[in-house]
Amino acid sequence: MANPVLIEVLRGAIVESAHRGAVAVFDADGKPVLEIGDTSKPVFPRSAVKAIQALPLVETGAADAYDFGNRELALACASHSGEPAHAELARSMLARAGLNGSALECGVHWPSNHDAEIALARAGGLPNALHNNCSGKHSGFLCTCVHSGIAHRGYVRPDHAMQEMVRDAMEAVTGAVHGPEERATDGCSIPTYAVPLRSFALGFARMAAAHGFGPERAKAAKRLLSACMAEPFFVAGTGRADLLLMQAAPGRIFAKGGAEGVHCAAIPELGLGIAVKCDDGAGRAGDAIAAAVLARLLHADESLSARLLQLANPPIESRIGAKVGALTPTPALN
Amino acid sequence: MANPVLIEVLRGAIVESAHRGAVAVFDADGKPVLEIGDTSKPVFPRSAVKAIQALPLVETGAADAYDFGNRELALACASHSGEPAHAELARSMLARAGLNGSALECGVHWPSNHDAEIALARAGGLPNALHNNCSGKHSGFLCTCVHSGIAHRGYVRPDHAMQEMVRDAMEAVTGAVHGPEERATDGCSIPTYAVPLRSFALGFARMAAAHGFGPERAKAAKRLLSACMAEPFFVAGTGRADLLLMQAAPGRIFAKGGAEGVHCAAIPELGLGIAVKCDDGAGRAGDAIAAAVLARLLHADESLSARLLQLANPPIESRIGAKVGALTPTPALN
Repeated sequence: MANPVLIEVLRGAIVESAHRGAVAVFDADGKPVLEIGDTSKPVFPRSAVKAIQALPLVETGAADAYDFGNRELALACASHSGEPAHAELARSMLARAGLNGSALECGVHWPSNHDAEIALARAGGLPNALHNNCSGKHSGFLCTCVHSGIAHRGYVRPDHAMQEMVRDAMEAVTGAVHGPEERATDGCSIPTYAVPLRSFALGFARMAAAHGFGPERAKAAKRLLSACMAEPFFVAGTGRADLLLMQAAPGRIFAKGGAEGVHCAAIPELGLGIAVKCDDGAGRAGDAIAAAVLARLLHADESLSARLLQLANPPIESRIGAKVGALTPTPALN
Repeated sequence: MANPVLIEVLRGAIVESAHRGAVAVFDADGKPVLEIGDTSKPVFPRSAVKAIQALPLVETGAADAYDFGNRELALACASHSGEPAHAELARSMLARAGLNGSALECGVHWPSNHDAEIALARAGGLPNALHNNCSGKHSGFLCTCVHSGIAHRGYVRPDHAMQEMVRDAMEAVTGAVHGPEERATDGCSIPTYAVPLRSFALGFARMAAAHGFGPERAKAAKRLLSACMAEPFFVAGTGRADLLLMQAAPGRIFAKGGAEGVHCAAIPELGLGIAVKCDDGAGRAGDAIAAAVLARLLHADESLSARLLQLANPPIESRIGAKVGALTPTPALN
């Protein structure tokens, strides 16, 4: 059966397009708090689980050895926009482990932030791997390898010790098997595993509640989510949905988008984890669904809920900046 | 009832995302040749109907008065990529009517072609309205106004004589009422009307067969589609799906995409018009569906059909250029 329509795209008063999807909200004991659509269907989480993938960086002691603060940890969990501060911080993380951008195996693309892209071109520059939205995560992998005495070359491969550590963390936190059958390759060349959407909700509830695993992992999970909430710009970039969601309630909401319409989030004060997948892979819908779900779960705080609902209803503008439509959550999300 | 899934997005061997949609193929007598999903549902055609919107440019005699050849007519039907040749041609079209880019009311955006954008930035330039993907269509509107002695200011407004001519042409060609109830505003500020998807299939069948209206309109329709097929680069831009579809069979396929997952096409030799809408608005899916439908309708030409099927199965690559997935049409399209 098709998942329900969760977001409608209005042009004037007419529905122009519609996005179906699924939503899972769980607590750290595995209790479902909200499920919309098929939450048992396997989904590639893509970049939405970078905070879980960053656990080995903290747990191996690499983050402490290199004196990483909130900004570095946030960048290790980031899909950043390639703005100058992002690229510079990735460079400095690598430098602390005696490496530079040439060690990154994530590939090269222009900054996703348009102003940063134009500025780089105007200065006669070319992008390098530091501008890749995943360069912080990859810098974290490289620092983990160097600190742990693991040869870093090929660290993106499924059979490399680094990706085995990441996979073990993903399995332990989400409770889902991450085997070769579930595996494909992410845009930055590391493995990504398709497991049931609800696993990510459970995983982020555990991360937020620091509950469901041993004290070392609990401490690392808390430290990573706190770092992201303290420095949300370094998790995303100017104007991005996850940044805006975290800025709406500093320290109270963790949010992280991923490619193909995925969004994961957590509300530490409620001990809840949230996972959203838009069936068709649209980021605009994944972001708006996450905002609508957060608004619903935080309805007791009316002013926060109103701010979140604004993010769930982004306008569509013409090229002269006139509002000609909007995204709007359907009653299925209420 | 939900429309069927027409395109699956594979990552490795696993379906990561899926696109639902509808397809209508009609002949010029209004006979349905192929209908998938709900083809009676109103759809905004957006830029996919620019060739119909350009009819007044030819029918008023403006195109002849300004000595427009295939390239100018193709650009009047275009969503171009803002490459230098596109912007320059729009400029020259306006100059023939004694105007310049400041008369354009479509708004400004950077070239959608990435190389053109970077080159413009590197040269210290800024985009202007000539780079807007709709500047050729708007230049056509402005030339029509000047030639016809109509004050051009406000030519984007629904009640302006220019948009009344466009609306009349759209109604006559598609056979669908384009009233205020169906109206919203397109990204370039002109009205767009949501009418049943099948109307566009019928409309493009009539355009291609030059059948279903008087001799003047038939001649203008034929001239516009021929111009687009002769100069497809000026309808789209480097690497774009509609360009690649038209290049696959020079002079035998007309194709034009529109925002929010719309694609219209025509096969003059078969007298068929095609209209596609991806429910969720994804351009990647609208393009792939159009390619798959064209391959099916042109199956008698095996080598052409194979080329079109390649366009229906575009690869997904990682940032290092490795193939990590692909779009693939579902059996519903076979």
